Amino acid sequence: MKLYDFEPAANSKRVRMFISEKGIEVPIVQCNVRDGEQFQEPFNTMNPFHCVPFLELDDGTVISESISICRYLEEQYPEPSFFGTTAEERGIIDMWNRRVELDGFMPALHASRNHIPLFEGRVVPGTRTSLPQLPEMVQRGKEMLDIFLGRLEPQLATNEFIAGPKISIADITCYFVINMANNFKMDVETKYPSIARWHKAFCKRPSTEA
Amino acid sequence: MKLYDFEPAANSKRVRMFISEKGIEVPIVQCNVRDGEQFQEPFNTMNPFHCVPFLELDDGTVISESISICRYLEEQYPEPSFFGTTAEERGIIDMWNRRVELDGFMPALHASRNHIPLFEGRVVPGTRTSLPQLPEMVQRGKEMLDIFLGRLEPQLATNEFIAGPKISIADITCYFVINMANNFKMDVETKYPSIARWHKAFCKRPSTEA
Repeated sequence: MKLYDFEPAANSKRVRMFISEKGIEVPIVQCNVRDGEQFQEPFNTMNPFHCVPFLELDDGTVISESISICRYLEEQYPEPSFFGTTAEERGIIDMWNRRVELDGFMPALHASRNHIPLFEGRVVPGTRTSLPQLPEMVQRGKEMLDIFLGRLEPQLATNEFIAGPKISIADITCYFVINMANNFKMDVETKYPSIARWHKAFCKRPSTEA
Repeated sequence: MKLYDFEPAANSKRVRMFISEKGIEVPIVQCNVRDGEQFQEPFNTMNPFHCVPFLELDDGTVISESISICRYLEEQYPEPSFFGTTAEERGIIDMWNRRVELDGFMPALHASRNHIPLFEGRVVPGTRTSLPQLPEMVQRGKEMLDIFLGRLEPQLATNEFIAGPKISIADITCYFVINMANNFKMDVETKYPSIARWHKAFCKRPSTEA
């Protein structure tokens, strides 16, 4: 098993944090997506969607998509669990991970891609296109992110972690959402004190250095 | 177990199609999100993210998010499988479902919400807001959807279904993406013949009437 990774990419770090939290080791191969290595072989064939990270199994099968990689690793190394240990727990954790990802992470990602100069010409993950960065995507992304934070706040006012009393994959996903919200100076500290409390505690985990 | 559902909603239909493909029965309760019933009790407390569908288990636990509901049902009724029967198959199917959902479904959803007059004042799922419908969200959503379709086409040129030789949850998700692409008159038939072939075959499945 090998993980193809580009160290500065947020989604690469997402999987490395998961691996760190699991306490496992996975050999890592660098694929420099900033310099376009993902469009060259063998990477182009391994992941025609051209995103990092992706995991190559020993039989040559490739699994891309951060959460799908984590899911696969969870099955190989069940403890400690980040996706839940019963069908009900797995349903709840998956629900929270989706809320965080679809309502928070994706709007923040598109806002970032349409805002940060480095992403000019690459506003859609895994592409080089002439599509311009749109300020409206930034504005709407921030508005959607703010709605999400307002919905998350009550959950974290009464729960230690995103999906309840135990840490889960939803916390790892949300760590990146709050980092992006802070980059956009969305005043999480004042407006969403429970989220700020959770983020501050989460930032102390050694996995955030992965 | 009860499924709270609003018949015209795409995500409600997504879960009903899954239930139909599984050949199982789940009692359904209507929650009219068009008239705002999701903001009233008991729905408001059951799902503070105010989206349909959501599943209430016999112990009162609520699982929302279409795919999380389907995942839970798959564990209760494993056959026929739509999420895979081995860790590797589950990884591959999850990867394809995410590609379809994050790269196709979400851009198409936001394009639709920012375009269709019915969604004025409700551009963000589960909300009533004063956020305006933005033509730029429609334009960018269609551009992103077109990039996704271009990436999906080679996969369907050599595979019967989205994730390979067997039908999976990714096919159900993609059915809605192509419906939205057709609503936007994106000329799938001419530009993406393999996708059109797959969609035409999929439309014949009885579950699409669910």
